[in-house]
Amino acid sequence: MKIESVDFFYLAMPEIHAIGDGSQDALLVRLRTDSQEGWGECEASPLVTMAAWNCPMSHSACKPLSASILGQPLRDVRDIGRIHERVGEQSLDLLQSDHLLSGIDIAMWDLLGKQLETPIYRLLGFDRSFAKLPYASGLFGETPQETLEKARDMGGSGFRAAKFGWGPYGRGTVDEDREQVHAAREGLGKDATLLIDAGTVWGDDVALARQRLPALKEARVAWLEEPFISAALGAYRELSSLSHPLSLAGGEGCHQSHQAYNMIDFGKLGYIQIDTGRIGGITSAFQVAQYARERGVAYVNHTFTSHLALSASIQSYAGHVEDQLCEYPVEATPLARELTRTSIRLDGDGMVCLPEAPGLGLEPDPEIIRRYKREVEIRVDGNLVQQTGTL
Amino acid sequence: MKIESVDFFYLAMPEIHAIGDGSQDALLVRLRTDSQEGWGECEASPLVTMAAWNCPMSHSACKPLSASILGQPLRDVRDIGRIHERVGEQSLDLLQSDHLLSGIDIAMWDLLGKQLETPIYRLLGFDRSFAKLPYASGLFGETPQETLEKARDMGGSGFRAAKFGWGPYGRGTVDEDREQVHAAREGLGKDATLLIDAGTVWGDDVALARQRLPALKEARVAWLEEPFISAALGAYRELSSLSHPLSLAGGEGCHQSHQAYNMIDFGKLGYIQIDTGRIGGITSAFQVAQYARERGVAYVNHTFTSHLALSASIQSYAGHVEDQLCEYPVEATPLARELTRTSIRLDGDGMVCLPEAPGLGLEPDPEIIRRYKREVEIRVDGNLVQQTGTL
Repeated sequence: MKIESVDFFYLAMPEIHAIGDGSQDALLVRLRTDSQEGWGECEASPLVTMAAWNCPMSHSACKPLSASILGQPLRDVRDIGRIHERVGEQSLDLLQSDHLLSGIDIAMWDLLGKQLETPIYRLLGFDRSFAKLPYASGLFGETPQETLEKARDMGGSGFRAAKFGWGPYGRGTVDEDREQVHAAREGLGKDATLLIDAGTVWGDDVALARQRLPALKEARVAWLEEPFISAALGAYRELSSLSHPLSLAGGEGCHQSHQAYNMIDFGKLGYIQIDTGRIGGITSAFQVAQYARERGVAYVNHTFTSHLALSASIQSYAGHVEDQLCEYPVEATPLARELTRTSIRLDGDGMVCLPEAPGLGLEPDPEIIRRYKREVEIRVDGNLVQQTGTL
Repeated sequence: MKIESVDFFYLAMPEIHAIGDGSQDALLVRLRTDSQEGWGECEASPLVTMAAWNCPMSHSACKPLSASILGQPLRDVRDIGRIHERVGEQSLDLLQSDHLLSGIDIAMWDLLGKQLETPIYRLLGFDRSFAKLPYASGLFGETPQETLEKARDMGGSGFRAAKFGWGPYGRGTVDEDREQVHAAREGLGKDATLLIDAGTVWGDDVALARQRLPALKEARVAWLEEPFISAALGAYRELSSLSHPLSLAGGEGCHQSHQAYNMIDFGKLGYIQIDTGRIGGITSAFQVAQYARERGVAYVNHTFTSHLALSASIQSYAGHVEDQLCEYPVEATPLARELTRTSIRLDGDGMVCLPEAPGLGLEPDPEIIRRYKREVEIRVDGNLVQQTGTL
């Protein structure tokens, strides 16, 4: 079994809005051997990411990913690790490579799961998959009243945990932010888990973040997410020393396992949030999940898009009973909602479980791919080096 | 003065070899206002980086860089800082954006320098530019004998410091590596400064790196560069505690200032090496140089390509008398060597000085651009979104 082809499908809503909704487009990856196929999804700029697949080589550590992947054997999970090493070495200086590898890695796991007729979490060595407590993940309303209504709706839909982020939060005054947070708590009810996402709005400015801590503590917020950009480890470390009992969460921007390790070891996070579609796929996400568990830090997926991405993102910590929370997109676009024929739904207790079908356990719907597909053509000196795949 | 156009020139040698020579291609950036133009260079995959300029928006934090830059005022250095903030916010999730911003930032500084008729280092607030001690930067020979001869040539060319890296180093046995290091020392002579670059070959494996320390100490190597990938802070920290009097150097892979801060604060480097063409340009490189100086860590440029890149890379620490070393490419391709009409040459004492002409003080040669230019065309749904610029 060798990797014979890797094709890319750039999907997008007819209109893209300048809001913090990452589900407005998608980059799907289809990977084939002679007998099987697997699917994955990158959480990344589709066009730029596609360009990294077959761009001309710049030097021995800046090769396109095709150079490390096409024609490689894919018989068992060790082959995936080997391919990661090849890409790490041969595309070290190609920055976008981590985002691209993410979708390819997921497709490799999906393919192997189908080939071996087992869900991915079992290939990772987990005996079982524990139900996760999904939190509804949405954007703050433009006004506290709007946030309050959104929070009521989320609670009414069976969610016992919810997160609000982006929108106006952190951009106005401390009092305005307080009102937003209290509105979310009021709408959600006193017993639900409330999470707040600052979306890196304070850059690395600890003073600005610190001013928001009292309101977050008043509203019994469980975590403050991304007060800073992922690399601002010193700022995370300092705020963390001031935030108790509030925990800090972050990590969605990490594109390598080691960056997440650093956020745990030096940034002193309470929750590490990994986007499987950015960190390097299930392989890297699993490494981070193990690393976090050994250090008593909670692992959570970062997923704001499709249920294909959601399944991929849960696999890496499915067997950890201690890591109970799970981000669950509730405001996704029709493209993301309809992409898979089946979906991962809340059960009667408000919990979610991974599908038990082989691989990711979900398939993208070709009809939806056709509906939202955008045609890409990249030429260098007239030669076609990349284009959207065909179904 | 508004930014009216940003054009890209992808240059490449007719044949690209799979060796660690990053000068085999180049991505030049030309930025224009109504009255002036500036040039910059990205140290990055040209095709993928060009794609990030005008890719379709994915969401509010994954916009193409054109959205943050075209039409923006560029009157003084504060405008450059403001543009960095816009890009940081609006292209947060576009991984390749840092590499692209690097070349654009350099072009903005070059343009402002020309407009204000002053070298860039003065715009950065330095009163003067200190001569730097260039080290010849080359690849290890395939055999110790070949390395010895290369080292003799470097010493004979007037260099008082030299670095060997990549090639077979770290890939064979500890004894083979020892022979290579001793050959470099022998060829260079006992008084020269010898630096060794492992090119991330040990990933994050401290044990493998540790085995090489004795030979490096025997040969009185001043620094061991990149034993690990940039993000492996824990490994750097551990090796650093074992390496005295040898210092660790690293940082060329950093694509944000904060990653370099982390290597200084948590990785305990003795030398922080910044590629201005990757970190976010002169703006970010200057931030790192200041940060390092305040903490007693030596700052060094990482430059393996053209003298346009070399000038850009020295500006950010030109006024620091304490940061004396300077990487100087000696094995660059004809493309990189001939790209500028003038170059930065060693003086009689084996030192190099920045040009005193406005901006970068060097201009790319249009004839060379024409000779090596590759034509790129990127289309989405048939619409041209990016192409190589015209002179």
